[in-house]
Amino acid sequence: MSAQAARAEAPQHQPILLRETVGSIALLTLNRPGARNSLSEGLIAELHAALNDVGGDKRIRAVVLAAKGPAFCAGHDLKELTARRSDADRGRAYFAQIMNACSAMMQAIVRLPKPVVASIQGIATAAGCQLVASCDLAVASEAAAFATPGVDIGLFCSTPMVALSRNVPRKQAMEMLLTGEPVSAATAQSIGLVNRVVSAGTERDAAIALAEKVALKSAYTVKLGKEAFYRQAEMNLADAYRFAAEVMTENMMARDAEEGIGAFIEKRDPKWQDK
Amino acid sequence: MSAQAARAEAPQHQPILLRETVGSIALLTLNRPGARNSLSEGLIAELHAALNDVGGDKRIRAVVLAAKGPAFCAGHDLKELTARRSDADRGRAYFAQIMNACSAMMQAIVRLPKPVVASIQGIATAAGCQLVASCDLAVASEAAAFATPGVDIGLFCSTPMVALSRNVPRKQAMEMLLTGEPVSAATAQSIGLVNRVVSAGTERDAAIALAEKVALKSAYTVKLGKEAFYRQAEMNLADAYRFAAEVMTENMMARDAEEGIGAFIEKRDPKWQDK
Amino acid sequence: MSAQAARAEAPQHQPILLRETVGSIALLTLNRPGARNSLSEGLIAELHAALNDVGGDKRIRAVVLAAKGPAFCAGHDLKELTARRSDADRGRAYFAQIMNACSAMMQAIVRLPKPVVASIQGIATAAGCQLVASCDLAVASEAAAFATPGVDIGLFCSTPMVALSRNVPRKQAMEMLLTGEPVSAATAQSIGLVNRVVSAGTERDAAIALAEKVALKSAYTVKLGKEAFYRQAEMNLADAYRFAAEVMTENMMARDAEEGIGAFIEKRDPKWQDK
Repeated sequence: MSAQAARAEAPQHQPILLRETVGSIALLTLNRPGARNSLSEGLIAELHAALNDVGGDKRIRAVVLAAKGPAFCAGHDLKELTARRSDADRGRAYFAQIMNACSAMMQAIVRLPKPVVASIQGIATAAGCQLVASCDLAVASEAAAFATPGVDIGLFCSTPMVALSRNVPRKQAMEMLLTGEPVSAATAQSIGLVNRVVSAGTERDAAIALAEKVALKSAYTVKLGKEAFYRQAEMNLADAYRFAAEVMTENMMARDAEEGIGAFIEKRDPKWQDK
Repeated sequence: MSAQAARAEAPQHQPILLRETVGSIALLTLNRPGARNSLSEGLIAELHAALNDVGGDKRIRAVVLAAKGPAFCAGHDLKELTARRSDADRGRAYFAQIMNACSAMMQAIVRLPKPVVASIQGIATAAGCQLVASCDLAVASEAAAFATPGVDIGLFCSTPMVALSRNVPRKQAMEMLLTGEPVSAATAQSIGLVNRVVSAGTERDAAIALAEKVALKSAYTVKLGKEAFYRQAEMNLADAYRFAAEVMTENMMARDAEEGIGAFIEKRDPKWQDK
Repeated sequence: MSAQAARAEAPQHQPILLRETVGSIALLTLNRPGARNSLSEGLIAELHAALNDVGGDKRIRAVVLAAKGPAFCAGHDLKELTARRSDADRGRAYFAQIMNACSAMMQAIVRLPKPVVASIQGIATAAGCQLVASCDLAVASEAAAFATPGVDIGLFCSTPMVALSRNVPRKQAMEMLLTGEPVSAATAQSIGLVNRVVSAGTERDAAIALAEKVALKSAYTVKLGKEAFYRQAEMNLADAYRFAAEVMTENMMARDAEEGIGAFIEKRDPKWQDK
């Protein structure tokens, strides 16, 4: 889908993904409120492209992912998927393409060398819930809710569960997946799906404030640490320690660690390099 | 042990495992209350056989596992085990057989293509606690309690910890295993071992209601999703996404997804196939 | 570093690690309060040596790890590390040596065939937080706090996160690592980092009481179980059950299980072997 076609989906020809910059924070806002911000092929592509751009932009230190309208994100665009049932293969090739494109975009969040903070103002369902689970951090409005209701329409939330089950304990994840019922923001916090719950309407500012806090750190150090976090999580204890000890040694040799430790010992503010 | 011999263990020649059907729910009830529903060789075999039967029965959409009497399940039948110390090998071959049979039965719960909901009315200890941890979902009476007290009798709860440690955070699992002390239903919920705590005496109905909720979904979809959940849980992120994206594509091609998505778009109730 | 040199670091020539025995409990106390008990090369070596000694001492059934002064442990000794920047290789070889020595000491806690209980009286940061996460159990004063603030000095807490992320859910671990901010004892309990929070000043006695509870069990059984816990945690479900069923069978053949089960059936106290 072309960028032009993508923009045609948005209200009054607005882009389906808003890109703003707030200081050193990239604010990406899902902007298909009429379609409950569902992840159309166009929106998946726009999000992935935006993440790639942000990844290579030295001025950007962190990302906030927010959404316009009452819903955060309703998951895949079912009308778009259903339209392809008339393909010669009944849509199989297209469905596979979309699922792979969506999975690649979700993994791009995990692989992005900068922290990504979700700001959830409304209900996040299916791949929308997966978006939240895929972010490094998440701030929810008390009005937000979370569900994996694919089971209600015969389409189990299999890709969302990959991210969900890496955030939430097994029985609680299974309950969401098997019943399809929403959990409140408070429950989402207690089971590990979000970090903080704030008053409705303040979630975007709270997410930006959280992102700004991390943006003040050394970008090199945050990049090194985020990458190492997800890598070591898949190793056994001995391998994880071998790997992490190497990362620490590399980190010690870097200019920002020398500066940061020096500043700490000298009781002054550190000055990070811009890389 | 023959089914006849098994039945002989129960009070007044009742079966040691009660099998009832409530609508599309199979209700399996441990019925050795005098022995605190301990998992004798006979009861392990009866449970495994019942799970196999339920797995192949298209009328059954979900399973509730409950128990009669004050205790939910006290774990292995220590008298039965101890009696075999007089074997020529001091019981080694028999103990290995029982541990393998019990582990196979626990894994049959995980592999069953239908959801299994535990209804815990009393204390669940050792392999009884493992039964709860092995179920997909669990509803506990506020009078229930959970413990892995094998350490108190010189027999560490090693097989129970396989299931427990896949439900409960590491330090909390370790505390249960090393101290042997019971945790309350409320604590069990907070650490992830059960989904819900209800008033004493209502846990069976609450478990059935939860099972019925899942039983209304497409059986095909629930089967696909449950199997995929436990498989992806053991993969790294990239493999899990590759696998889940394939599952989603297969799911999209299935009749129940086409029907379910169509019904959702047309705002009507879906009609699932009975397979 | 020689033991003499190590002792020279402590106030008034006290050892930097105090070793006491309380009944069958080894009480190891970090004793560099003036340096916030930071893990100097000497203290890492002393701790590792003490763990080795305790591992081979049949009179010792459990370990409590505590600390003197306002802080529990501030992580690595930054002054010691920084001093080596004047080495020909700018400290690289030394940093690698320290990181590996520290990781080996942390893994020695995990591998110790006896339970280790942390008693946290103050703030535990970076490798200090890792020490807590590496222990089997942890009792915190309500005045304690926990942080992984390496990111603030350009040195991401990469080795601490290996232990932290095996205790704490992903988003909560990420928040600690990316923001560097401390969490309270109550929060640490709710996210799985500590088992219990007690009144300030009672944490040491509470940790000893918890250790004593485990020390009353069969040492053979605790050893078997602790080792099996961490091994099975890294296996898939089928392998974990195969392994745990073997452990259970071996355990059943041991003298302490025969004694413990016999005592349980005969309603008397068991007498464990001293090995």
